[in-house]
Amino acid sequence: RSEVLKLNEDPGVHGVCLQLPSSVLTSRVANALKPEKDVDGITDLNMGRLVRGDFSKGFVPPVASAVVDLLEKHDAPLEGKTVLLVGSEGPLGFALQCLIEGSGMVALKSQWSSASLQRQVIIFSPYTFTVEVFFLNNQANSARSGLSLHRFKNKKKKKKDLCVFYVSDIEISRAQTPKPVTQLAEEIGLLPGELEAYGRNKAKVRLSLLDRLHTQPDGNYVLVAGITPTPLGEGKSTVTIGLVQAFSAHLKLNSFACLRQPSQGPTFGVKGGAAGGGYAQVIPMEEFNLHLTGDIHAITAANNLVAAAVDARMLHEATQSDKALFNRLVPSVNGVRKFSPIQISRLQRLGINKTEPTSLSPQEVSRFVRLDLDPSKITWQRVVDTNDRFLRKITVGQASTEKGQIRETGFDIAVASEIMAILALADSLEDMKNRLARMVVGTSRRGQPVTAEDLGVSGALAVLMKDAIKPTLMQTLEVRHERITLNKFFNIKCRASGLRPNVVVLVATVRALKMHGGGPNVSAGAPLPKEYIEENLSLVADGCRSNLRKQIQIAQLFGVPVVVALNVFKTDTLAEIDLVCQIAKECGASDAVPCHHWSQGGRGSVELAKAVKEAVSRPNNFQFLYNIEMPIVEKIRTIAQKVYGADDIELSPEAKAKVDYYNQQGFGSLPICMAKTHLSLSHMPDKKGAPTGFILPIRDVRASIGAGFIYPLVGTMSTMPGLPTRPCFYDIDLDPVTEEITGLF
Amino acid sequence: RSEVLKLNEDPGVHGVCLQLPSSVLTSRVANALKPEKDVDGITDLNMGRLVRGDFSKGFVPPVASAVVDLLEKHDAPLEGKTVLLVGSEGPLGFALQCLIEGSGMVALKSQWSSASLQRQVIIFSPYTFTVEVFFLNNQANSARSGLSLHRFKNKKKKKKDLCVFYVSDIEISRAQTPKPVTQLAEEIGLLPGELEAYGRNKAKVRLSLLDRLHTQPDGNYVLVAGITPTPLGEGKSTVTIGLVQAFSAHLKLNSFACLRQPSQGPTFGVKGGAAGGGYAQVIPMEEFNLHLTGDIHAITAANNLVAAAVDARMLHEATQSDKALFNRLVPSVNGVRKFSPIQISRLQRLGINKTEPTSLSPQEVSRFVRLDLDPSKITWQRVVDTNDRFLRKITVGQASTEKGQIRETGFDIAVASEIMAILALADSLEDMKNRLARMVVGTSRRGQPVTAEDLGVSGALAVLMKDAIKPTLMQTLEVRHERITLNKFFNIKCRASGLRPNVVVLVATVRALKMHGGGPNVSAGAPLPKEYIEENLSLVADGCRSNLRKQIQIAQLFGVPVVVALNVFKTDTLAEIDLVCQIAKECGASDAVPCHHWSQGGRGSVELAKAVKEAVSRPNNFQFLYNIEMPIVEKIRTIAQKVYGADDIELSPEAKAKVDYYNQQGFGSLPICMAKTHLSLSHMPDKKGAPTGFILPIRDVRASIGAGFIYPLVGTMSTMPGLPTRPCFYDIDLDPVTEEITGLF
Repeated sequence: RSEVLKLNEDPGVHGVCLQLPSSVLTSRVANALKPEKDVDGITDLNMGRLVRGDFSKGFVPPVASAVVDLLEKHDAPLEGKTVLLVGSEGPLGFALQCLIEGSGMVALKSQWSSASLQRQVIIFSPYTFTVEVFFLNNQANSARSGLSLHRFKNKKKKKKDLCVFYVSDIEISRAQTPKPVTQLAEEIGLLPGELEAYGRNKAKVRLSLLDRLHTQPDGNYVLVAGITPTPLGEGKSTVTIGLVQAFSAHLKLNSFACLRQPSQGPTFGVKGGAAGGGYAQVIPMEEFNLHLTGDIHAITAANNLVAAAVDARMLHEATQSDKALFNRLVPSVNGVRKFSPIQISRLQRLGINKTEPTSLSPQEVSRFVRLDLDPSKITWQRVVDTNDRFLRKITVGQASTEKGQIRETGFDIAVASEIMAILALADSLEDMKNRLARMVVGTSRRGQPVTAEDLGVSGALAVLMKDAIKPTLMQTLEVRHERITLNKFFNIKCRASGLRPNVVVLVATVRALKMHGGGPNVSAGAPLPKEYIEENLSLVADGCRSNLRKQIQIAQLFGVPVVVALNVFKTDTLAEIDLVCQIAKECGASDAVPCHHWSQGGRGSVELAKAVKEAVSRPNNFQFLYNIEMPIVEKIRTIAQKVYGADDIELSPEAKAKVDYYNQQGFGSLPICMAKTHLSLSHMPDKKGAPTGFILPIRDVRASIGAGFIYPLVGTMSTMPGLPTRPCFYDIDLDPVTEEITGLF
Repeated sequence: RSEVLKLNEDPGVHGVCLQLPSSVLTSRVANALKPEKDVDGITDLNMGRLVRGDFSKGFVPPVASAVVDLLEKHDAPLEGKTVLLVGSEGPLGFALQCLIEGSGMVALKSQWSSASLQRQVIIFSPYTFTVEVFFLNNQANSARSGLSLHRFKNKKKKKKDLCVFYVSDIEISRAQTPKPVTQLAEEIGLLPGELEAYGRNKAKVRLSLLDRLHTQPDGNYVLVAGITPTPLGEGKSTVTIGLVQAFSAHLKLNSFACLRQPSQGPTFGVKGGAAGGGYAQVIPMEEFNLHLTGDIHAITAANNLVAAAVDARMLHEATQSDKALFNRLVPSVNGVRKFSPIQISRLQRLGINKTEPTSLSPQEVSRFVRLDLDPSKITWQRVVDTNDRFLRKITVGQASTEKGQIRETGFDIAVASEIMAILALADSLEDMKNRLARMVVGTSRRGQPVTAEDLGVSGALAVLMKDAIKPTLMQTLEVRHERITLNKFFNIKCRASGLRPNVVVLVATVRALKMHGGGPNVSAGAPLPKEYIEENLSLVADGCRSNLRKQIQIAQLFGVPVVVALNVFKTDTLAEIDLVCQIAKECGASDAVPCHHWSQGGRGSVELAKAVKEAVSRPNNFQFLYNIEMPIVEKIRTIAQKVYGADDIELSPEAKAKVDYYNQQGFGSLPICMAKTHLSLSHMPDKKGAPTGFILPIRDVRASIGAGFIYPLVGTMSTMPGLPTRPCFYDIDLDPVTEEITGLF
């Protein structure tokens, strides 16, 4: 603010174009600026306020829109003049693309490097003017207040005629003032009583909505999947959001995107946030990436309450007689002794049909009070929502108060909890509660599964999770966006939900295809090898004919049409893009289209949306890959051979023993969820393309009885990521004055 | 609902009095009930709707209020009739007390047992009628819908003339429909932009409020403390809430209660919730006790991100050369290499005033990249918000991926995190961020403290905590209620905040006083010995002259007047109550008054509020107990002798070494926060009263540099509670249809 006041008094400054977060502008700074110093109309661009209307109707990139407005307003004052394009960080090429494509301008040169000041001549027929690109310091926080104003002041002295700012992901997110979520909810037809707002920008949707809508016909269900990705990710989230933006804002079709809430582990670790990117984002992205509505925290709390109950129970059983346990578990309250409902459930499972505590025989008391958990067969792990590799394998109970009851165990990342899977699969509070009760935490010394309900904790779990099951409603840059935790597994989700996908959108990138075609290794943090920056049609073609073809075939196994969405990067050439689309169609895709949602928002995904709409109208012969009653080993083999392309599977002795145990316990007809690296179709992350001629090793087989599936562990699979030497958190910061967050992308 | 429909058609039923949560009533059930079956006016009582106006103005217990209404409406139809008083659980004696005291009735007999159906003759001058008490099943969930309606139907056949339900804590909470928090905020003068609603009933208050109000004079600051409690707790929360209810609703003085958010560990463990009780509650209590606005989850996430960063950093330093570390910590991005701001801070602390990465000498690179943490001197522990005793002492890093970097560490309960202390002490975002950056996580091999900022994580911590620092606004049954995390320590909080308490309210109970007077042991879960149920003036007097007197003297050490609040239980006799008040005044209390907030809400605390108001007007000579510049050991000795009554202190060799180290590091002038059992003034939990003649053993001395205090560990103090054999979670359950929670008290 004091910077602004200084600029007001500086006779050398003829205009000020503020690039500040709207929160600051609205409160104090905007009022401090004298009207005569305000650059025509452009201030509003940066405040994201005047262009709000455009956002919610159809998408016009705000940069171009503001330029066009200015041209119309001033009868093309830019003829022969220079436009200053200022960006704090992020791919400036896209800004220019917006400027050009959005306004009908023509660029004389299309080559932009992102290193320093650039000049470019633009023809906006019939006018010609020059665009000068100016980079602010690459660090987002220096792009704020002081520094950006200071630099800007220097630029102003050069008397540019128009200034346009370009903004990075988080700035795009911030520049757009989200609709109040209550208004959003009303527009999409939710009743006020069906909404629980969490602040201004997010809300929980009550499950009563399901009752109200249960007679409505189902909509079309589009599954967005991807080819085998590089470690950098190929953009399933952005494609999903872009597609919804295209459907809703451009094709005027009601649509919702369902995304999983991002885990904070990767956000602060190596991957960063997961709100989409560019002009295809969930907003506000800070809220999407941090805490959100606390669902993962609830999972963590519930999961760890079970873990604490397991160990405490083992300790109490080890140190107390049957009688002492019974007196404590069924205490006399005001002279009355009785079982709680959860204890009556346990008695019934034990075949003891009594409800009067004093009527139990000593033997029945013993069976009731002793879960008799085998410490070496506890399968329940603790969780944290942090990439904490040192918790992968730990020993607990080493304090003297635990009387030597030490054992080895470990922590998983919170989203790997069975409770997360239950949240994704449960279709009502009752279903969730029943699944939570059925979760198996370990095995008794007599070989019987012990459940959360046996521990007496399942009611408390349902209470902890009662809000998490409600979907969270947020919005995208252009339209609306609903997140509901869905695992998009045909064989599990579709069986559990009864939903049948009408079409699969398969996301591919030229980068990943080149990798599958034999390109060099791609890893996070390291610069991309030149093969990925320059045109290389042969690598692209080989990638298409291996991994992409195989992925299309996999989707077709389920009888569902496939549309390939090529997520276009700025380094992709037209020839590469055309080649991918051509081969994809040859390999059986219903259609294959390039997507420009990152730079253009929904407008860049209109072709994809049209292709999806067309594919939805085709006949759909959805079928499951295997009969659920097939033996566990056969189901695993079917997946390995038909989906992954393995010759066969090989079970370790441990895996075999587990299969026998699950069959004996009656869990044999559960579906299978393979726990395998996502970096290859095989179990070997470095085998790209469509590997063949391998035997898939099944190291162990585990069961999530509550969630309702068996999950074989294929090769080594970590359920707890680690932190790199320089984690994302190094760049994440909070300005204590503006409350603005930097470094969270 | 189907139960209601059945009742509608049943000619034997002449009226139905529904005892259902209002959420159910409002949606479907209320409409299902035929008007002719509705019992006069009383339905509204149970729906908590017609009496809402009374709640927000002055407090009339709803039971009595409804009876009075009915008497007025029908010209005393109860003359000679029978009133049925139905309660699902909870102390029914209080219901009757409400009925009697609230309506001016006189009971002929005051003895009520809580075992079965009771009859009582009531005189409501000039009418006489009979009250019959009927207990529903003791389990809250059977008091719902089906069972209660069924039993009620049977009662109806006996043709009672009036039915009154009594409700338990959670039912009282539910029966009262809370004001929308937006309306509440408006009434207390918050601007819409200063509020972030979290659902309908709770909101965060933005810190911008502090800016707006900073020219306002401070209000009076009342500290609510307690005498040494029994393990059952003596009601500091209920007294606090009762006091604000009295101030706001009855004395018409603006007042706010500030409570700490309850930890979920005890909620599901042994203690239960912490929302107050009876007619002195924070509502809705379910939301207060569960997740709330996620502040403790945020603390957990932030604390554990630091822990993961500590171990990952030690691993990376152990396995990489200086050069490799430097290349990763300061990578080349698009050909540019530069330090992040957090790294420049570290360089400055190291005395390296360079900002160009290539200009560092190899020696400087080594000092920059190596925190060189000594694994045996890591003081940072992980946390969970669960009573998980098996995590007290653990070994981490045992997976082969951690390359043998195993070490012993442990988890604390989340609220014991230094980040919790910072949240309680920080007065702005900037202050919080600075404190987070200063937190010391361990010591380098060269003996230097290593901070969160050295780890590069402090900006991310501030981002994770940015919402948690905002106070959460909720309301009490009668008025409003603001929770802000405050540690009420004179020597720490008052120094940090500059706030000076005007009066101390010292909460006592006859039960705790009897214990201090020599009564038998009191423990959670076991029935109370008869000394605590029957009148015993000698035990009470001895307790007053030992612990209560000492506690009054402690408060007077700080020059602040003391008002003793005797939290009255139904078993206390008039003689006992009078005796406590008399001795308290003899011992120097400004005043001593019995409080009946539990049964009467704010009306029961009006005398306390008046006494507090009177004490506030007295001269206040607030002084600190010690000069902050005194040596650490002297400060500890001063507290031990003047506050606890010890003869002296004795430091272990470890404690002495730590004191030397802190002095050397310049931490010597921090205030002291003793970590000692709260169950005795000494370090021995079984020494009640006012122990003397003991030497206080200082086992270890630790420092929370970020929060800004030194904390000596006195004797054994657990920072991780355990679960009992039958934890609270056994009774906690969720009805999947009504979404009602049971067993959470």
